[in-house]
Amino acid sequence: MNNIDKLIEKAEAGDKASLGRLLTILESSPRNASYILSKMYKDKGNAHVIGVTGIPGSGKSTLISRLISIYKAKGYKIGVIAIDPTSPLSRGAFLGDRIRMQEHATDPNVFIRSVPTRGVKGGLSFSGVAMIEIFDMVGYDKIIVESIGVGQTDIDIMNVAHTIVVVTTPGLGDDIQALKAGVMEIGDIYVINKSDKENVDRVYAYLDFALNTSELGVKGGWRPKLLKTSAILGHGIENLVDVIEDHLKYLTDRGVFNKKILSRRGLMIKLLAEKIFLYKLDSIFNELDTRSLLNKYGLYNASIKIIENIINSLDDNYSEE
Amino acid sequence: MNNIDKLIEKAEAGDKASLGRLLTILESSPRNASYILSKMYKDKGNAHVIGVTGIPGSGKSTLISRLISIYKAKGYKIGVIAIDPTSPLSRGAFLGDRIRMQEHATDPNVFIRSVPTRGVKGGLSFSGVAMIEIFDMVGYDKIIVESIGVGQTDIDIMNVAHTIVVVTTPGLGDDIQALKAGVMEIGDIYVINKSDKENVDRVYAYLDFALNTSELGVKGGWRPKLLKTSAILGHGIENLVDVIEDHLKYLTDRGVFNKKILSRRGLMIKLLAEKIFLYKLDSIFNELDTRSLLNKYGLYNASIKIIENIINSLDDNYSEE
Repeated sequence: MNNIDKLIEKAEAGDKASLGRLLTILESSPRNASYILSKMYKDKGNAHVIGVTGIPGSGKSTLISRLISIYKAKGYKIGVIAIDPTSPLSRGAFLGDRIRMQEHATDPNVFIRSVPTRGVKGGLSFSGVAMIEIFDMVGYDKIIVESIGVGQTDIDIMNVAHTIVVVTTPGLGDDIQALKAGVMEIGDIYVINKSDKENVDRVYAYLDFALNTSELGVKGGWRPKLLKTSAILGHGIENLVDVIEDHLKYLTDRGVFNKKILSRRGLMIKLLAEKIFLYKLDSIFNELDTRSLLNKYGLYNASIKIIENIINSLDDNYSEE
Repeated sequence: MNNIDKLIEKAEAGDKASLGRLLTILESSPRNASYILSKMYKDKGNAHVIGVTGIPGSGKSTLISRLISIYKAKGYKIGVIAIDPTSPLSRGAFLGDRIRMQEHATDPNVFIRSVPTRGVKGGLSFSGVAMIEIFDMVGYDKIIVESIGVGQTDIDIMNVAHTIVVVTTPGLGDDIQALKAGVMEIGDIYVINKSDKENVDRVYAYLDFALNTSELGVKGGWRPKLLKTSAILGHGIENLVDVIEDHLKYLTDRGVFNKKILSRRGLMIKLLAEKIFLYKLDSIFNELDTRSLLNKYGLYNASIKIIENIINSLDDNYSEE
């Protein structure tokens, strides 16, 4: 039994430190990631993956903190994956933001992991989705993915969530409204947070109208729900949890729940191919004499040459035993 | 002379419609993009690329609109590339945001193009950088790239800018501060916009301290500058332009200006390789039976198989003549 096998065993027994190590190893190399995941596939996961998306300022960290409290009280194990657009250099600033969630960090049944999206080589979507898989396989019941909904990684990861909660709030500026609009197509549940603020009724009426008149209003038979919460005051949270559970039941009854899990695993092949390619591309690029490549081959053929170099450097004799 | 050649000729003569067509063709396929760029390389561009980054709510669109006015008055041709995190479906909402810039859209010497980052296949960084190249080659003097600074595309494009202006503003929420912190390492010039607001002195003192005590304070010999503006009132803009021009002179005097252009062109090989790969990956993925691939090969080798399939489907006999 090697080191990774031992970590998996311990993580399954509830050891958070081992789980943390696994997640770190996952990001270290495509091979290690594949090895961990090949072990995991032997079991069948059934965690409910909940995406919570909304731009900065919508209060989604506080909202997630409230969700964690309720799910904890129900006896669930909860994993949180926070897609973090700040840079590793800015950790200090970042911590101030998610401090509300950190109150749960020492709880034996809650594990919070952030995935920084800046200053990191390609293949981030793979890491995020693989983390969901690992949480699932070591017995977590609810996996909450927090994201601002901007960028390809956010989209890839939201695509594998069972239930998507879009958080908005009244009183943000014009251009923030526009940014927000970018995630307006994907929600199963829309939450107007900070409902103690003024203008909440206007925002509610606007969204209600949008959901009832446009294609936003139907998502594969499920009609998206619109709710009001005040995460900071604790209002409307139990209701939100009820609606999330309704959506889960809806998915389960129709077999969509398991289909999502199968397609998530299939997607990992693609995301891993992407990760391997971008990883190799980054590592060979700095050694290239791009100027002479351009002169010799022109842009298109120079790019093709590079792709060929990458494929030749791949070793496909890896065994997952 | 084919169709693309004609468009290039017209764009060089100042025809904005032809330029717009070229930019659209650029995004249509890697081959067309390469063909256009191979024509462009025959000339030598010398446009000054200015990145303006800052989160939504910092007022950077208004600020850019002011910059355009000043550069227009100096007789320059100005291209704007707006990296747009909203989705194509949300165009309506988006327009509200950048309306301040649109006042210049009909000017013969100003061309504004937005690049949506949602709902688009991979290879976006290539498109953005290639657009810079095209603006440069048809004779634009100042190319302003607007970005919220989140996501890989934003980073790739900011990396090729000659001068980076980071826009911030007092009075945003805690988590917005955190997001902002993510772009705090990259600026040549830091602008505190909305300087008519309260708390501006506190933000100024904080940033001034950060610039004078940390590694933020030195960027290859150039000490980043800190300025106050009020874009909406028009305060401090001329001063900002002066400092941008100081930075340009600094780069030119040291030969960094041309080095940046050469490395930008080299980078395009990498970004095009990425685009070609991700484009092919997306198009073959939907036809795959991922479940049987996983069962037969395991995750890692299934991914390698896919990469091999992609390389076999590439045609490297493209001639740029």
